[in-house]
Amino acid sequence: MNITLAEQVRHKIDFKTKPLGALGMLEKLASQVANIQGTLTPALIKPHIIVFAASHGIAANGVSAYPSEVTAQMVLNFLNGGAAINVFTRQHGITLLVVDAGVDYDFGKNEKLIHAKVGYGTKSFLTSPAMTPAEMDECLQRGKEIVANVQATGCNVIGFGEMGIGNTSSAAVVMSKLVGVPLGECAGKGTGLNDQQMSAKLAILHEAMQNHAKIDNDPLRVLQTFGGFEIAMMCGAMLEAAERGMVILVDGFIASVAYLCAFRMRDAVSEYAVFCHESTEKGHGFLLRHLNVTPVLQLGMRLGEGTGCAVAYPILQSAVAFLNEMASFESAGVSNKTL
Amino acid sequence: MNITLAEQVRHKIDFKTKPLGALGMLEKLASQVANIQGTLTPALIKPHIIVFAASHGIAANGVSAYPSEVTAQMVLNFLNGGAAINVFTRQHGITLLVVDAGVDYDFGKNEKLIHAKVGYGTKSFLTSPAMTPAEMDECLQRGKEIVANVQATGCNVIGFGEMGIGNTSSAAVVMSKLVGVPLGECAGKGTGLNDQQMSAKLAILHEAMQNHAKIDNDPLRVLQTFGGFEIAMMCGAMLEAAERGMVILVDGFIASVAYLCAFRMRDAVSEYAVFCHESTEKGHGFLLRHLNVTPVLQLGMRLGEGTGCAVAYPILQSAVAFLNEMASFESAGVSNKTL
Repeated sequence: MNITLAEQVRHKIDFKTKPLGALGMLEKLASQVANIQGTLTPALIKPHIIVFAASHGIAANGVSAYPSEVTAQMVLNFLNGGAAINVFTRQHGITLLVVDAGVDYDFGKNEKLIHAKVGYGTKSFLTSPAMTPAEMDECLQRGKEIVANVQATGCNVIGFGEMGIGNTSSAAVVMSKLVGVPLGECAGKGTGLNDQQMSAKLAILHEAMQNHAKIDNDPLRVLQTFGGFEIAMMCGAMLEAAERGMVILVDGFIASVAYLCAFRMRDAVSEYAVFCHESTEKGHGFLLRHLNVTPVLQLGMRLGEGTGCAVAYPILQSAVAFLNEMASFESAGVSNKTL
Repeated sequence: MNITLAEQVRHKIDFKTKPLGALGMLEKLASQVANIQGTLTPALIKPHIIVFAASHGIAANGVSAYPSEVTAQMVLNFLNGGAAINVFTRQHGITLLVVDAGVDYDFGKNEKLIHAKVGYGTKSFLTSPAMTPAEMDECLQRGKEIVANVQATGCNVIGFGEMGIGNTSSAAVVMSKLVGVPLGECAGKGTGLNDQQMSAKLAILHEAMQNHAKIDNDPLRVLQTFGGFEIAMMCGAMLEAAERGMVILVDGFIASVAYLCAFRMRDAVSEYAVFCHESTEKGHGFLLRHLNVTPVLQLGMRLGEGTGCAVAYPILQSAVAFLNEMASFESAGVSNKTL
C-alpha cells in the first residue's frame, strides 16, 4: 500500500523529539509547506513581499480618517525605506516590491517601483462601478505577470500587502456582498475613524450597496463594481502564485478580501495560503472564521502594507527549520515509550 | 515641566508613519524595552536562552506520560544540537545555555553544560518536602550566579526555559497554592496523559497538597515544598535578571510559575518580563490572566525548553527595529492630519 506524502510528513513530525503535537501551529505550517512543495525537506527560497498601492474614488466621499494624498506619500515612504514594511522586510531578508497599481500620482521613472498603473484611482463606487470590465481584466493580468516575474528569480514564497486610503471601505463592501453578511460586520474604523465618522462611513457604504443592489455574487463582477485596483491585482497575483505552487502569505483585512475573491474563483488557492495575522480591523476576524482558517499571529496590528506577513515570516521559517533539523527519537536516543 | 522617558517613547511611537496604535503588541513591546533600558533607541544585545533541567521525585508517582529518564536523554539531545530549542536558537542567533540544575544522571565533564547540580532530583513531594531549605537557597543562588555570568558577556536579554519530566505537576501545585485556585484549574496533561492518567495525576497531587496543608503562601516555602530544582533556579535567575535591568523572556507554563514565585518575592520583576506565548498546558491561560499579562504568541505550543521564547524573539526584534528605524510623519513628508 502506498503511503501518501501527507502521511510521510505527519510521521516525520510525530517522531521528532517532542510530545505529539507539542509544536502546535508550527506543525501545521510545516506540514502545509511540505505538501505544497511535495517534499519531506521543504525550503523557503528568496521570499518576497509585494505591496500593491492604489487610490480609491470612494475616499472622496469621506470614508477615511486620512486624506487620499497619503497613498502616494506612503508609496514614496516605501521607496525611501522608511515605512514599517521596509523595517520588517530588511529584518528578515525579504525582498520588498512596491507596485503602483493605480495611484493618483505620477511617480516618474523609479526603478524601485513596479509601474502597473491601471488608472489614476478607481471611480467612487457610490453611484457607478469602481472600474470598467477592461480595467478589472487588466488588474488580474498585471497581478499574474508580476508573480510570474517574481517566480523567475527563484522565489517560492510571496507575501501580499497593500496601501490605499479608502480600501477598507472597498474591502468591506466586497466582503459583505460575497459572504452575504451585513455591512456592519464587515466595515471597521480603518486608519482610525471616530464614532461619528464611522456612522458616516457606514451610511455611505449602505447607500452604495443599495445603488448596486442588482449585482450578483460573481466575484469578478463584485470586484469590478466595488473593488480597488490593488485588491483586484492582488487577487490575480494570488491566483497565479497558487497556480505556480508557491506559498502565499496573506496579510490583513484587505489582503484577505483579495484572497476571498481568488478563493471564490478557484478554491484550490486555499492549499497555498498562510493567514499571517488577525487584524483588529472589524471585518477581519469574521472573515477568517468564515474561511475557517486560523491566523498565525494575533498581535492587535492593523497597518496593512504586508506587515503581518513580514512579522509572521520567521515563524514560518521556524516551522520549516524544525522539520528539517530536529532529531528524531531514534536518532537522539530519546525514549518515546509512554508509560 | 519635565517630560518623562515613558512619554517621550510614546510620542516617538505615535509620530511614526502609521495610524495611532496600528502596530498593536509591537508598540507595547517597543515601549517596554525602551523603558527598561532607559533610552529612546533600545537595542537587544547578545540574546541568551537558558534551559534549566532537573529530575522530579514526584515523577515516580505516575504523574507523567514519559519515564523520568527522558530528562537526561533530552539534556543530551540539547547538547548534541537536535532538540527544537537548538533549531530555533540557531535560527535567531541566540546563545543557548543548558544548566544541569539537578538531573538524576552524571553527565561527566561537558563544556557545553553548566554544572549546577543541587542534587540527583528532588524528593517526591507526595509525603515530604521536595527539597531542603538549604537546597532551595542553593537553587536561588546558582540561578543568580548564572545570570551574572551571562550579563558579563554583554547580554541584555535572557529567555528562560526548562526540561524536567514531572514538572507540570510541581508547577501546578505551586500555582494552586500561590494563586489560591483549585488544582483542577492548574494541572494539565503535560507531555500527553490520557484521561485516566490525568485523573490519577490529579488524585496524587490532591493527596500531596493535603499532606502539606499547613504550608502557608510564602513563595519560598511553597517552592521548597513542591518545587523543582529547575523551577527554583529559574526563579532566582529571573530575580537577578530584573535586578540587573535585563529583558526577561518568559516561556510557557513552568517558566511562568517560576516567574510567579519571583513576582511574589519582588513585584518589580514585572517591568522586565515579556510573556512569550500562551501554552496549551491547562494552567497557563489561567495564570497569564491572573498575572494580567498578554502573551506575544498563541501558537498552541506546549513543549517548554524555552521554545516559546525563541520563536517569539524575532517579534521583539521587530518591535525594537520599528522604534529605531521607521520614519516619522515629518521626516517622510507624510500627512498625519486626519480629516
